[in-house]
Amino acid sequence: MRKRMPWIMPVVALGAVLALVAVSCNGGGSGGDVDSIAKERGLSQEDIEAAVQTYTPSGEHDPYIMFASGGHGGQIHVIGVPSMRLLRTIGVFTPEPWQGYGFGGETSEAVLDEGNVAGKEVRWADTHHPALSETEGDYDGQAIFINDKANGRVAVVDLRDFDTKQIVKNPLVINDHGGTKVTPNTDWVVEGGQYATPTPYTNYAPISDYQSKYRGMVTFWKYDKEARRIDTAQSFAMELPPYWQDLCDAGKLESEGWVFCGSFNTEMATGGIEDGNPPFEAGASENDMDYLHVINLNKAAEVAQSQAQDINGMKVLPLQAAIDNQLLYFVPEPKSPHGADVAPKGDYIVVSGKLDPHVTIYSFKKIQDAIEKGEFEKDPFGVPIINFDDAKEAQVELGLGPLHTEFDDKGYAYTSLFLDSAVARWSLGGDYNDDGWKLESKVPVQYNIGHLSTPEGDTVSPDGGYVVALNKWSIDRFFPTGPLLPQNFQLINVADNGDMKVVYDMPIGFGEPHYVQIIKADKLEPFEVYPEVGWDPGTMAVNPNAAKAGEEKVVRNGNNVEIWSTAIRSHFTPEHVEVQQGDNVTWHLTNLETSQDATHGFALPGYNISLSLEPGEAETINFVADKPGVYTWYCTEFCSALHLEMMGYFFVQPSG
Amino acid sequence: MRKRMPWIMPVVALGAVLALVAVSCNGGGSGGDVDSIAKERGLSQEDIEAAVQTYTPSGEHDPYIMFASGGHGGQIHVIGVPSMRLLRTIGVFTPEPWQGYGFGGETSEAVLDEGNVAGKEVRWADTHHPALSETEGDYDGQAIFINDKANGRVAVVDLRDFDTKQIVKNPLVINDHGGTKVTPNTDWVVEGGQYATPTPYTNYAPISDYQSKYRGMVTFWKYDKEARRIDTAQSFAMELPPYWQDLCDAGKLESEGWVFCGSFNTEMATGGIEDGNPPFEAGASENDMDYLHVINLNKAAEVAQSQAQDINGMKVLPLQAAIDNQLLYFVPEPKSPHGADVAPKGDYIVVSGKLDPHVTIYSFKKIQDAIEKGEFEKDPFGVPIINFDDAKEAQVELGLGPLHTEFDDKGYAYTSLFLDSAVARWSLGGDYNDDGWKLESKVPVQYNIGHLSTPEGDTVSPDGGYVVALNKWSIDRFFPTGPLLPQNFQLINVADNGDMKVVYDMPIGFGEPHYVQIIKADKLEPFEVYPEVGWDPGTMAVNPNAAKAGEEKVVRNGNNVEIWSTAIRSHFTPEHVEVQQGDNVTWHLTNLETSQDATHGFALPGYNISLSLEPGEAETINFVADKPGVYTWYCTEFCSALHLEMMGYFFVQPSG
Repeated sequence: MRKRMPWIMPVVALGAVLALVAVSCNGGGSGGDVDSIAKERGLSQEDIEAAVQTYTPSGEHDPYIMFASGGHGGQIHVIGVPSMRLLRTIGVFTPEPWQGYGFGGETSEAVLDEGNVAGKEVRWADTHHPALSETEGDYDGQAIFINDKANGRVAVVDLRDFDTKQIVKNPLVINDHGGTKVTPNTDWVVEGGQYATPTPYTNYAPISDYQSKYRGMVTFWKYDKEARRIDTAQSFAMELPPYWQDLCDAGKLESEGWVFCGSFNTEMATGGIEDGNPPFEAGASENDMDYLHVINLNKAAEVAQSQAQDINGMKVLPLQAAIDNQLLYFVPEPKSPHGADVAPKGDYIVVSGKLDPHVTIYSFKKIQDAIEKGEFEKDPFGVPIINFDDAKEAQVELGLGPLHTEFDDKGYAYTSLFLDSAVARWSLGGDYNDDGWKLESKVPVQYNIGHLSTPEGDTVSPDGGYVVALNKWSIDRFFPTGPLLPQNFQLINVADNGDMKVVYDMPIGFGEPHYVQIIKADKLEPFEVYPEVGWDPGTMAVNPNAAKAGEEKVVRNGNNVEIWSTAIRSHFTPEHVEVQQGDNVTWHLTNLETSQDATHGFALPGYNISLSLEPGEAETINFVADKPGVYTWYCTEFCSALHLEMMGYFFVQPSG
Repeated sequence: MRKRMPWIMPVVALGAVLALVAVSCNGGGSGGDVDSIAKERGLSQEDIEAAVQTYTPSGEHDPYIMFASGGHGGQIHVIGVPSMRLLRTIGVFTPEPWQGYGFGGETSEAVLDEGNVAGKEVRWADTHHPALSETEGDYDGQAIFINDKANGRVAVVDLRDFDTKQIVKNPLVINDHGGTKVTPNTDWVVEGGQYATPTPYTNYAPISDYQSKYRGMVTFWKYDKEARRIDTAQSFAMELPPYWQDLCDAGKLESEGWVFCGSFNTEMATGGIEDGNPPFEAGASENDMDYLHVINLNKAAEVAQSQAQDINGMKVLPLQAAIDNQLLYFVPEPKSPHGADVAPKGDYIVVSGKLDPHVTIYSFKKIQDAIEKGEFEKDPFGVPIINFDDAKEAQVELGLGPLHTEFDDKGYAYTSLFLDSAVARWSLGGDYNDDGWKLESKVPVQYNIGHLSTPEGDTVSPDGGYVVALNKWSIDRFFPTGPLLPQNFQLINVADNGDMKVVYDMPIGFGEPHYVQIIKADKLEPFEVYPEVGWDPGTMAVNPNAAKAGEEKVVRNGNNVEIWSTAIRSHFTPEHVEVQQGDNVTWHLTNLETSQDATHGFALPGYNISLSLEPGEAETINFVADKPGVYTWYCTEFCSALHLEMMGYFFVQPSG
């Protein structure tokens, strides 16, 4: 492993590091006027404006709700905008005891088990790209989807109760990145691939067989809006060359029915730094152009009916079928492309090459014309390649390390610049803006921005006013919490005249969020409490076997003990449950409350059991009482002044 | 289960529910003056002042750091004050994949396994009371302790790297509540009990044997400051009557060496609503007085050397020995007591009865005089009871549902009022304040406050200026995120003239924090990066077997495969690892970075493995490669522009 090749050493441009001055703070103000308070706190007039700008008064609600992926925390975070307050975390792939997710409750355990990988419990994820469900290209507030890059999975969260209802494990791939994105009516959830493997990944093949046996993949999950579940039987995947497919976006309006995915490593580098090969970072960055994948999804769905093969229980359209049926085209895209973002009218696709200072804008019409014309180069696998200049509408030089682009309501686009640590604002041409394709301004962010997002920025009708910058490093921005530092979300205010100003730093003290979507709060219609007492969040209906008030009981049948319990401020019924060591215990609990926020918890110590019973909710746990002794269960929510008294004794008599 | 007894129905006083008006928001301001921005956002002059008050400018650091228990999330949260920004979450009892806590890394798996309960993995907790380490009664920024009420455990977190280093399972009890609190030089970590069980809890006894076989417990864990670990061999517990011991506080200055614990359920109610008995909430609330437990810790530690018995591997001082050696006294305390808080000079102990509108203040000197005098009543177990009036210094009527009290630097105390949903400010008498024992003012909070905290408020030298109210219900304060709503931390500004004003609402979108402590930021000295490359956070020293740059290798020995890997922007070495199905894999990884914030992740899909390698950190994983196929590991941190290329292939050749 001693021989080394020279390769590109990426430079992390951090920008100027500010000198740190702790806030002078002498125990708060004296209730005086703004000027004196400001002076006391060492604030400038600009600081005050920024403070006012971001301030959402106590008790008022944010007009926007942001859904952030939880990165390698495996969750989704719900954040108010512009206050940048974390409203809650939603357990998705990783158990969360405080919300009773994956700690004994049958409903959530079943969802998490759907995500098992080849029969193995995988209880974390690297969640990347949340996708809000859409109707006619606008967020509709019904559901949100998210992918697990690490293990190749997709989850469905119902936005009535902010509860994860389904996880699908892709049986073909062990990783994904380029999703989730949804089509304009949420007919399909797109799960783009990332690192090529054999298909399925469980079929071992040596790396020397890379070009013959390794393949890329994009998967189209059919979403059943009635059932609010992915219908795996109607879903299919499309085999792709063993390039590393990256972010996808779904077409809309004139491009509806098409999907666009970036890619890199068209070099088909296979790494092996230990053998003197260039590492992936160098080997996968040699080509000047990689390929934007242009996919005719609607036609592919038709063709898949007859020409898909079954692999590991999943319908797969072979690459040759995709080529033969004119489902797949490539368009060259410059240097280490990353984001691919469709403009609001569906007419343009914006891509960024991380090692190219431009964004490149393709015209959907030009792509269609080129397909019509039919003059193609071919890649080594026979995929038709559209000429770059035939597809290109414009290029705009923005700066170093452009990654992702979102849009506003005034014909401007916002692109993150990772190496510059900045956000660029630039004008769209065409019907959008008389300014044409032109850089307008940039604002520095701290530091190393990945994605960015604008309110409703990925829809057919984006709002303006704000940009949220998702910065990967925070370095000196906050008091350091040991060697592991938070990420930094920055709220950028965009004035009517286009001036951009960073007005708030929100440290992300948990897993690295990759992407967020921001929806108008009034599009969401969450339950305040569950519609009826005895509600099963799994079926979203009353569970006929739920414990009912006045019908609490303990029933023994051989060594099976079944318990029906209720909870209401401030007691459980019953308060004593006695079993024999080794008994199989099935315990039904119902929260009888109908008041908003009257959640009760149920903690059974020693047995790794924690439930969160929201008002009306019914839940069931199953376990074997294998440890003798006296176990004190209790309500984990501070539900009333006498909440400490809300407890019970679980007695396990020793056997033998 | 049909017969019911009347009992107290606690009333949850919510205060006035504000009408909700969404913030009018038209995409941000126009960069104008404060007045026009304020007008645009519908803010009053008061709102602006509040905004300015709470605003910590971007890039500047908070002067205070707040450590919040994570409630039934099982973690600790680190929050800046006054900005109320979540700086990070620390994995304590619950695995956290994004920080590589409990997902394959040997170090953290070993810590979590220390917390197994009777051999069973219990991977969550109900963390209650964080206690910062102290030197001479002041927070010293070295470590923080926290208890798990649900399962009777205590954890130790090192504040150099904000990493959990130790979990101790109390072998006697299955639950605790009244801790953790530390003595003024962190010689002892106090773990108070809660619900009585047999000792140990694994010894089944029927509830009919409650008075004879069930016992309360307080445990004193010896902390070894050099080793920065609890020394279980030097620790001991004290058996107590089967009342439900509640919060403890350690004496300081003149009361140093003593410990004070509240209690309730001196009725020894055993519940059983299903049999027509009063439920615990009623049965445990009948007496007018319960008992403050006054414990001579220093003397108990001496006596324990000779008179403690070994129970389940733990030294236990029997109740009779505690009585005989004059280690334990009771003082009556009014109606359903909860908090017990020692004043800064150690001279007074403040208790609150949840169902009594007063706080009661005891004089430590009066308690000592009464002990000296030696005229006691006795409880049914023979514990001497000091006369209430002999110990009482004062009572102050504050309002409904007083719970907890902290202090400031001007001789005032702040008490949470659960039923009133308010914070009361009152003057201490004695040497503290010429105002005597007197209610000064109250401020409403939203809603149902539990604990509160002031900066350094639990030390011998509290700061003033702020109060943080830990409110259990938020109801209408934020946009609702389904039936499960956040808690609400409110920042109260306390002006020099004593005026209190709620200036910020911070939703807690994860487990319910019970208590927080707030330390001056400049007392913390966190590592910016680990001191040397190859650092083991478990031993806090370089691991001699850590992978080193230039010495990466894969070594096979029979079916054991050992791998030494390194990570540096933006590649792993090696990039290919091939094993046979069924091999035992031991994989050492070192992050070679020495720059602050240059963390690399290591995600091995399909095997439930996620590491977070902070700069310099070395970690080891062990697993059996039981699933064949091609697995794509990668760095989960967006560490450079080419971070997507930072990956490798793990090949598992099928057996047979």
